[in-house]
Amino acid sequence: MLSTDAIVIGAGPVGLFQVFQLGLHGLRAHVIDALPHPGGQCAELYGDKPIYDIPAVQACTGHELVQRLLAQIQPFAPQFHLGQQVDSVQAQPGGGFLVGTTQGTQLQARAVFIASGVGAFVPRSLKLPGLDAFEGSQLRYRLDEDTSLTGQRVVVHGGDEPAVQQAIACASAPEAQRPAHTTLQHRRDVFDAPPALLEQLQALRTAGRIEVAIGMASGIVETQGRLTALELTTPEGTQQSLPLDLLLVRLGLVPRLGPIADWGLALERKQLVVDTATFATNVPGIHAVGDAITYPGKRKLILSGFHEATLAAFGAAEWLAGHKLPLEYTTSSERLQKLLGVGESGN
Amino acid sequence: MLSTDAIVIGAGPVGLFQVFQLGLHGLRAHVIDALPHPGGQCAELYGDKPIYDIPAVQACTGHELVQRLLAQIQPFAPQFHLGQQVDSVQAQPGGGFLVGTTQGTQLQARAVFIASGVGAFVPRSLKLPGLDAFEGSQLRYRLDEDTSLTGQRVVVHGGDEPAVQQAIACASAPEAQRPAHTTLQHRRDVFDAPPALLEQLQALRTAGRIEVAIGMASGIVETQGRLTALELTTPEGTQQSLPLDLLLVRLGLVPRLGPIADWGLALERKQLVVDTATFATNVPGIHAVGDAITYPGKRKLILSGFHEATLAAFGAAEWLAGHKLPLEYTTSSERLQKLLGVGESGN
Repeated sequence: MLSTDAIVIGAGPVGLFQVFQLGLHGLRAHVIDALPHPGGQCAELYGDKPIYDIPAVQACTGHELVQRLLAQIQPFAPQFHLGQQVDSVQAQPGGGFLVGTTQGTQLQARAVFIASGVGAFVPRSLKLPGLDAFEGSQLRYRLDEDTSLTGQRVVVHGGDEPAVQQAIACASAPEAQRPAHTTLQHRRDVFDAPPALLEQLQALRTAGRIEVAIGMASGIVETQGRLTALELTTPEGTQQSLPLDLLLVRLGLVPRLGPIADWGLALERKQLVVDTATFATNVPGIHAVGDAITYPGKRKLILSGFHEATLAAFGAAEWLAGHKLPLEYTTSSERLQKLLGVGESGN
Repeated sequence: MLSTDAIVIGAGPVGLFQVFQLGLHGLRAHVIDALPHPGGQCAELYGDKPIYDIPAVQACTGHELVQRLLAQIQPFAPQFHLGQQVDSVQAQPGGGFLVGTTQGTQLQARAVFIASGVGAFVPRSLKLPGLDAFEGSQLRYRLDEDTSLTGQRVVVHGGDEPAVQQAIACASAPEAQRPAHTTLQHRRDVFDAPPALLEQLQALRTAGRIEVAIGMASGIVETQGRLTALELTTPEGTQQSLPLDLLLVRLGLVPRLGPIADWGLALERKQLVVDTATFATNVPGIHAVGDAITYPGKRKLILSGFHEATLAAFGAAEWLAGHKLPLEYTTSSERLQKLLGVGESGN
């Protein structure tokens, strides 16, 4: 069982800065995020778009902001558990918390920091009776590296960039790894993706490497425990059956507050209620920061999350120490500079 | 009479970012600071020292931080009133405020933001009976450009870098502008300044260009309305009279909360009490942010001041508009990008 000082749920900018502020208190952190990379909403929704309101950073993209924060927290060597969704948080009888993920990771920590934003970004699911049973086998929301597509009849479901990109990736794979058939399935023959991708799609359609199947997905066909086809209702109202071996659903990501709603934390309109002096929730030892929380005057800004993470780190550090802690400055404190590995003491 | 939307008292990092956040609400600001340059405590006390805890800025000196913030607020073209200390803030019968400085500037504004930190940085004064009456004539805490030293008997009072530097500057001036005598006066013959300055001082003493007078300043001699000498008690306990035409007191800067304490604002242990939803003081229209304020959990960190300035701008903008304002993001809002002069609308 991995044991650490703090678990930070969410690897967005606020979760990353939470690691920094905990590090200044000498507290080590593990970070868990549902996405396979750090950055959260910031990297996911505006990775390449400029942000102008980070103080003293005139303009930077979401990706750049994440890179800067990763560099800043590097002295504190956080351990990341990515592509994992926190499933349970349980207070332990002897103090501290046990945190488990849907992927089976179990961690023990003295304090927990929820920096999950509007929720874990999880793939939007396709709801069809009986389909869920095939998740992880013939139904995939994400491909892992060892999934073989070779010779399979693959249906990609979706109409936006992720679906178009997935269909192109399948059809352009080296021949030895290529599916037997790649079908892109969407309710109408209009796809929302950048022009370059749409051109590639058209070229692969013309070459007969991608087929497009139009219609509303209305059901599945199951034969002897196997998913054998997706049923469609065409725009003309007829039924069509699309035979398949592998169904890749690519409907984008949606934030999901998920199990956090079930941990006994005080909520107000689906947002965590905190004490703004310490950013503690109603459960001692669990702090919350960023877009997941509410308090009078709260604005969902990255900057506010940074401030909240700072006070949360102080709040937790004082709670763990059992006494007040003085404010020290990174500019003048040798102790902080040593932790950061900078200054005379760090060289 | 100059009229504007907002007056920001204090040109430190928090005051500067206050201008930025007001700008995003379309509110124009004038900034007043007692120092002759922007940057406040940050530039004054650690201008050349690295700061490590500004989010997404791994390390920057106080001066660099100020330069970055000045660049960031440039689209909002704030007007600076530097080297001026705010003297009075009066609510006007018709709404808004009249703000006056000790230098005689009068400004009218719809809202006031106090970002004065621990206070205005003002020169530490020398307290001797009757001396105050000569301030601005024969007693100078700062030299203005048209003060002539030529042929004067100048006494520089102080033992640290500012005094040593001033004495060297006097004694090294071109001959036409040089004082007849330069005396550096301190209570003991030990000066606290960088080695290079101490070497210069020694060279000028050896050359007979600077005299050093040791003793506690104990009084002044006034003759026919003129300050004619400074009286000293030497370490041996004897009295000495140091004839002079001009007394340059160089005891460094001290923060002074000053007249802010007299504006009828609620204080708690000499700090302004604010509503943390809007950072409004008890006087509607006057907001306060940064190191001058107190609230539960308050930490005197630049980052917290940035967050406070953000909520203060929202608080004031909503108060001025008379209704709630939605949150917009610089990444996606064309309105904000137009204000910033960036993006498609700005080019």
